[in-house]
Amino acid sequence: MTAETIRCKAAVAWKAGEPLSIEDVEVAPPQKGEVRIKLVATGVCHTDAFTLSGEDPEGVFPAILGHEGGGIVESVGEGVTSVKVGDHVIPLYTPECGECKFCKSGKTNLCQKIRATQGQGLMPDGTTRFSVDGKPIYHYMGTSTFSEYTVLPEISLAKINPEAPLEEVCLLGCGVTTGMGAVMNTAKVEPGATVAIFGLGGIGLSAVIGARMAGAGRIIGIDINESKFELAKKLGATDCVNPKHYDKPIQEVIVELTDGGVDYSFECIGNVNVMRAALECCHKGWGESVIIGVAGAGQEICTRPFQLVTGRVWRGTAFGGVKGRSELPDYVERYLAGEFQLDDFITHTMPLEKINEAFDLMHEGKSIRSVIHYD
Amino acid sequence: MTAETIRCKAAVAWKAGEPLSIEDVEVAPPQKGEVRIKLVATGVCHTDAFTLSGEDPEGVFPAILGHEGGGIVESVGEGVTSVKVGDHVIPLYTPECGECKFCKSGKTNLCQKIRATQGQGLMPDGTTRFSVDGKPIYHYMGTSTFSEYTVLPEISLAKINPEAPLEEVCLLGCGVTTGMGAVMNTAKVEPGATVAIFGLGGIGLSAVIGARMAGAGRIIGIDINESKFELAKKLGATDCVNPKHYDKPIQEVIVELTDGGVDYSFECIGNVNVMRAALECCHKGWGESVIIGVAGAGQEICTRPFQLVTGRVWRGTAFGGVKGRSELPDYVERYLAGEFQLDDFITHTMPLEKINEAFDLMHEGKSIRSVIHYD
Repeated sequence: MTAETIRCKAAVAWKAGEPLSIEDVEVAPPQKGEVRIKLVATGVCHTDAFTLSGEDPEGVFPAILGHEGGGIVESVGEGVTSVKVGDHVIPLYTPECGECKFCKSGKTNLCQKIRATQGQGLMPDGTTRFSVDGKPIYHYMGTSTFSEYTVLPEISLAKINPEAPLEEVCLLGCGVTTGMGAVMNTAKVEPGATVAIFGLGGIGLSAVIGARMAGAGRIIGIDINESKFELAKKLGATDCVNPKHYDKPIQEVIVELTDGGVDYSFECIGNVNVMRAALECCHKGWGESVIIGVAGAGQEICTRPFQLVTGRVWRGTAFGGVKGRSELPDYVERYLAGEFQLDDFITHTMPLEKINEAFDLMHEGKSIRSVIHYD
Repeated sequence: MTAETIRCKAAVAWKAGEPLSIEDVEVAPPQKGEVRIKLVATGVCHTDAFTLSGEDPEGVFPAILGHEGGGIVESVGEGVTSVKVGDHVIPLYTPECGECKFCKSGKTNLCQKIRATQGQGLMPDGTTRFSVDGKPIYHYMGTSTFSEYTVLPEISLAKINPEAPLEEVCLLGCGVTTGMGAVMNTAKVEPGATVAIFGLGGIGLSAVIGARMAGAGRIIGIDINESKFELAKKLGATDCVNPKHYDKPIQEVIVELTDGGVDYSFECIGNVNVMRAALECCHKGWGESVIIGVAGAGQEICTRPFQLVTGRVWRGTAFGGVKGRSELPDYVERYLAGEFQLDDFITHTMPLEKINEAFDLMHEGKSIRSVIHYD
């Protein structure tokens, strides 16, 4: 079973700040320990836009972006044993090797096995599988889902129940799992808790769902875009607050609204000032704030240390603290069991050719998620 | 049993920045829910010096400072049931009422029952029990142990085993419990863990003891005053590091020394730059940093949010997270059982009349703890 190079369509980011360009790319066969998959669908996420903007210090170009996909195994390289042709999979930008210090710690999902090459836009052997007219194109987050076909290390694939619609569960490859996992896995919100969620985009709304599933007693959604409030309430928010309606800092508003502050808060934007507000609206003695959003390069968070000395805890999360290969398949099962829906997130669908519209809709705040459907 | 006003010696802080003055003070009888105690000994702590310097935004003058004492109940006010005349007690600047939202939460030791009045230098009824020639003198931290006699609310007293020498276990009223508790109670350091302790004064050395008792595998003490290293090693430090010996930031030094960072770090100084270093020397994925030191008014801690998103946790602690009435007596029992010593901390003893020398020794870095012995 020797795979051939595939020629297919992909959206290429030639340089920062420019629209993506649909190109015919060549996708080389999977090498040892690698898997080539045919994408069925992919979400378009703010992180893709962040890198495309040029603000991401790790961004390399030209590259094929995209990291929220769902696909089917097309071919496998030497030594691959955990997936086979035809398996349904979700690409993982946080792999799970099971062997490194991090995987073995039992304390984190941040597998570091291929961190160095992934950050450089390369496969673990230091080369790329994409090219256009012989010119190498970089990978992105180890996933590159804005292509009809992509190649990943075996350790970067979660094998999921084939009954799940890939056009929906692709969202579990990033945003939805990140938000739900931050609440249920990182913060471990308990029944009855009071929760504040800053930013009601895809991540924030997923955090709302996670808080509802965790049995939170009060779920306060905060956004300056009130068009987000209706869906937030449908998904479980008990209160929605627009900071622009108040003269005082939003942390003071939330503290007053909750008789001393919230038990847990989540920053789902990537704004360092909001991160501070999210910490400071936590209840003295025990409130915990979780940073989910990714801030711009070089930006810093600040607060008075008294906030921590008096019992607040500041932490962060990546991919909701979820281990992709061992834990993500269970999120798919819970979705299939009807514990949460995903269709509310998908405000727009389109073919790959219209992917730049997905970025426009996101920048205009008109979409929660646009999902690209491949043929 | 109606108590009379007592006339006794006390060290009065008339105003910020000036030495303490030994005065004849009048100590009124304990009112409802209050207890008057005869002090046997009191430590002199950096927090006393901090308030005396004028930098403490809550500092009020004239006041009787001191918060690390040990004494014997002399008289009790109406309704007091948990202690009786002759009981040995440790004054608590963090009370434990057992009834407030904080006490009932099970998540914090920060009882708020009398927070407002205590912060103003007053007893819960809004008045003071101290006066000099009819002029009221403020209380301090609810304890005011720089006096032969002091009055406290019943909820601010831990009743301890009378076999314990008050000249030593007075240190459990602040510094030693703070350092040990931060390690064992707040961070819950597990056997085999790698720990970094920034600042090897009384708190830092207590954290070293706590880390040893918790079974930490590696205990790294960090200080720019190498005269602290010998005792730190005697108490359990496995490595001692002087940041001045390196050209690069101390966090980088510690990360290299520990193959990626420490599992837990503790800031025992009150320096916001060191707080940042303590966080950033933690291991990616799981390292937790605990702020123990108290920073100057208005100072802020900063870091890149990426530090938290990649799994580090930033928290703080006050009085080591220990609930004074229900948990401190057990620290005394563990001391009596020989699990740790306190005499190493006591570098100087002196009568009340020489208390200003204790401040001088502290400022010169020549003492760990000076303990005042009352007659």
